[in-house]
Amino acid sequence: MPRYKLTLEYLGTGFAGWQRVQDRPSIQASLEEAAFKLCGERVEVIGAGRTDAGVHASAQVAHVDLPKEFESFNVMQGLNFHLLTDAMGLQLAVTEAERVTEDFHARFSATGRRYVYRMLNRRARPGLEGGRVWHVVEPMDAQAMHAAAQRLIGHHDFSSFRDTQCQAKSPLKTLDRLAVERIDDEIRIYAEARSFLHHQVRILTGTLWKVGRGDWSAEDMKRVLEAKDRREAGPTAPAEGLYLINVIY
Amino acid sequence: MPRYKLTLEYLGTGFAGWQRVQDRPSIQASLEEAAFKLCGERVEVIGAGRTDAGVHASAQVAHVDLPKEFESFNVMQGLNFHLLTDAMGLQLAVTEAERVTEDFHARFSATGRRYVYRMLNRRARPGLEGGRVWHVVEPMDAQAMHAAAQRLIGHHDFSSFRDTQCQAKSPLKTLDRLAVERIDDEIRIYAEARSFLHHQVRILTGTLWKVGRGDWSAEDMKRVLEAKDRREAGPTAPAEGLYLINVIY
Repeated sequence: MPRYKLTLEYLGTGFAGWQRVQDRPSIQASLEEAAFKLCGERVEVIGAGRTDAGVHASAQVAHVDLPKEFESFNVMQGLNFHLLTDAMGLQLAVTEAERVTEDFHARFSATGRRYVYRMLNRRARPGLEGGRVWHVVEPMDAQAMHAAAQRLIGHHDFSSFRDTQCQAKSPLKTLDRLAVERIDDEIRIYAEARSFLHHQVRILTGTLWKVGRGDWSAEDMKRVLEAKDRREAGPTAPAEGLYLINVIY
Repeated sequence: MPRYKLTLEYLGTGFAGWQRVQDRPSIQASLEEAAFKLCGERVEVIGAGRTDAGVHASAQVAHVDLPKEFESFNVMQGLNFHLLTDAMGLQLAVTEAERVTEDFHARFSATGRRYVYRMLNRRARPGLEGGRVWHVVEPMDAQAMHAAAQRLIGHHDFSSFRDTQCQAKSPLKTLDRLAVERIDDEIRIYAEARSFLHHQVRILTGTLWKVGRGDWSAEDMKRVLEAKDRREAGPTAPAEGLYLINVIY
């Protein structure tokens, strides 16, 4: 069965998230339905990351084994043609398809994942970016957030930054980058690691939010990290501000 | 009656455009309804530009006379609070309110207007920016577009770039800037003038599209301009790629 690597762009709004669930549209099920229409057989689409409901992606990666050979270009065009998401008011597109060998696995071959979290930091609610940012009214100190973020870089037990439902065997992860920058009234938090725990980026963001509003200092990051207790970190930031922007192989 | 200058952000999708019309939500009517709820009297909101249905704005400007004095901050907060657009699945926000004198007029005092037109130039349809860009599949030569655009700068009779329904008395306008740049798979066309004719930016964009795909050269711009005939220019580009980004006073 020839394997194809797919690069995907989607607006998480309205989707149940990546994973196939009963009675609600998911990214995975939408793609599998389109693949069925393209090749006449039921296939499974495996994603690099199982993004939560409401989380967006500019370059999620997946792979799929098709029952026969197609030109890569026709896989992209065919899947986009058969996707019913537009008609449902949802946004999902295959931006690239590439023929790969069977040793390529979207999830297990990935050596890095990059996310950006977008925070709109101003009094007025969003008039253009509703559902695409976390609207935070109180003024945030982006420099303090960036400085605090640097305390979390490296190989650590991230139990404090892990959802209580997280099923990963180990809480040990290596955070390669956590950078905060302000662009006018938007704050962007860039996070990069080989892999993340469940909700890790959103809990990191919620914890930096505590720093940005002046509740916590950079020193507090050490305390939160060493506690290895989810209750010590900040809240889980809303899904709608999070984007999976790159998967590295 | 104290006058307030409002800065507005909106996603044009789903709106009938700026102007009040029967039976469909418009930006103007939504704001007037919110102002009525805020101050208990019917008031008129005057915009700097009457954007078409589907056209977006990151900084449209309007003014409104309220029956009594309010703190500017409370005008912004109050209007946003009373806007019913969120509940209708529409996006509109007042990002700033400022107390101004009676000689300020959002439309007549404006000395410049800036627009950007966003074109997504790739094979795959948009998965994140649907309704927010014009999706153009054939490869565009942005450099050729930029070079051609420079032939249109200056004071000219823009009859070729004017909708047949345009009600302006004169077709003479001064185009101060028309710049084309590529950022990855997006082409941005920046247009700036004291004021524009009806559909002028969209017809300029449709004409540059003819250049970008190789149908026309920069030389053709002279021919189109001198013809003073709408039929000689390119098509009117779709509303959904256009953003009013700045009004200068």
